[in-house]
Amino acid sequence: MTQDKTRREVIRLMGVTAGVAAISPYLTGRAFAEKEKVTKIEPPWPYEKIKPKVAAERAYGGYYEAQCMYGAFWGIIGELAERRGAPYNTFPAKMLKYGAGGVAGWGSLCGALNGAAAAIYLVSPDPEPIVEELFGWHQEAKLPDYIPEKAKYNIVKSVARSELCHVSISNWIKVSGLKLTSKERGERCARITASVARHTVKLLNQQAKGKLKALYPISGRTKACRDCHDKGSSREDSRGKMDCTVCHFNLGIKHPAKK
Amino acid sequence: MTQDKTRREVIRLMGVTAGVAAISPYLTGRAFAEKEKVTKIEPPWPYEKIKPKVAAERAYGGYYEAQCMYGAFWGIIGELAERRGAPYNTFPAKMLKYGAGGVAGWGSLCGALNGAAAAIYLVSPDPEPIVEELFGWHQEAKLPDYIPEKAKYNIVKSVARSELCHVSISNWIKVSGLKLTSKERGERCARITASVARHTVKLLNQQAKGKLKALYPISGRTKACRDCHDKGSSREDSRGKMDCTVCHFNLGIKHPAKK
Repeated sequence: MTQDKTRREVIRLMGVTAGVAAISPYLTGRAFAEKEKVTKIEPPWPYEKIKPKVAAERAYGGYYEAQCMYGAFWGIIGELAERRGAPYNTFPAKMLKYGAGGVAGWGSLCGALNGAAAAIYLVSPDPEPIVEELFGWHQEAKLPDYIPEKAKYNIVKSVARSELCHVSISNWIKVSGLKLTSKERGERCARITASVARHTVKLLNQQAKGKLKALYPISGRTKACRDCHDKGSSREDSRGKMDCTVCHFNLGIKHPAKK
Repeated sequence: MTQDKTRREVIRLMGVTAGVAAISPYLTGRAFAEKEKVTKIEPPWPYEKIKPKVAAERAYGGYYEAQCMYGAFWGIIGELAERRGAPYNTFPAKMLKYGAGGVAGWGSLCGALNGAAAAIYLVSPDPEPIVEELFGWHQEAKLPDYIPEKAKYNIVKSVARSELCHVSISNWIKVSGLKLTSKERGERCARITASVARHTVKLLNQQAKGKLKALYPISGRTKACRDCHDKGSSREDSRGKMDCTVCHFNLGIKHPAKK
């Protein structure tokens, strides 16, 4: 069997498996509008409604299996894989271990957010507004807000204030009084993973119904920074939507006042 | 055809396609040691040597097709897909648009690094040391260090000092004197994508030969911070390997001196 023939075969099977054209009006109406779209590998793959609690429990278990990024992603895509098989179950999800601890322990982007964003872009026909709302929520909400069925400890909530792993963790350590290597900290990140998967699924479900609610727009304080520094401003010397003031809080007396 | 049967079929085809058992001694020796490993979907997928320049050119083109994360990832995995077909060509790579601009424009993790880390964890049997070296290099090297065959502008180099998109971009803007929305800034990020893909492939090739060189260990100044704040320290109130001093440079007179 030649490489090309095999590739076509895999693609064909992915299409055939779908059989999902009957799943929901949302799917038939959008993702399956053209036969061409059914048989392609590229996203968006069809999404169908998942119960938020189901995603949360799967994500929680996924954290203990292969960490935060995998947990958040597989909490969503794993559920579709279990229900529908291919193409969802052809995704090599364990590669997403890479996001653990802000990418291999570097403390940068929260792995749960990295995994959720990956899942959103895999299944949503209009992913950016969902990421916008998810990241805004994660920055400002008291988390974790999901208690798993087999809860292990009593875990206090905190506000991450950031998309960054090390900032989120340090803020939780400050509130909890516990240490980085405490079992509670691991459990806290497992529940963050579950909370993020649950919230992501709520937003995906909202969008599938045509009713995505945007409750966490960019804050006024961040907009004030962007007015001078981001796209279309006088200086245009930075970019981003993270809350600037979490890191840039000590700007000195020479920094211009808000316009 | 049932879902289960189809899933088995897809997996079987992915295995059959491989045919890659003869690609190199590295592959036959490691990834293909057992038949079981050949037919599974989970990583590591077999890696075979790629010429760094080939990955760079593909990544550069990928940036203009679907941004930084996609570009860096597909610069590597796309090359294997073109050579070998499945399973590489079954990866829905366009989902990786999500990493653009530090995830949908949020300015967090550099998308090129996010995509490279994803590729590394997909094909390396021991991915963490490669990420360690890649991120250390990206933080300290003058980049971009790759000039594409059809170079568009004259692009100055800068040191990102960080894994974060907005820090990297702001530092380049400071050095270049150009703005965020200048064409040169886009071209600069395309070349960062190419540079990251090229360096990643160099490191993957080194590891495949059993000779991974670690030239960028964690700096002394970051180690000094970790001595009191990271795992196993007295405070244990943070985590990470990014250069702390890039953001935490104004610690005030009360902050303890280095031990």
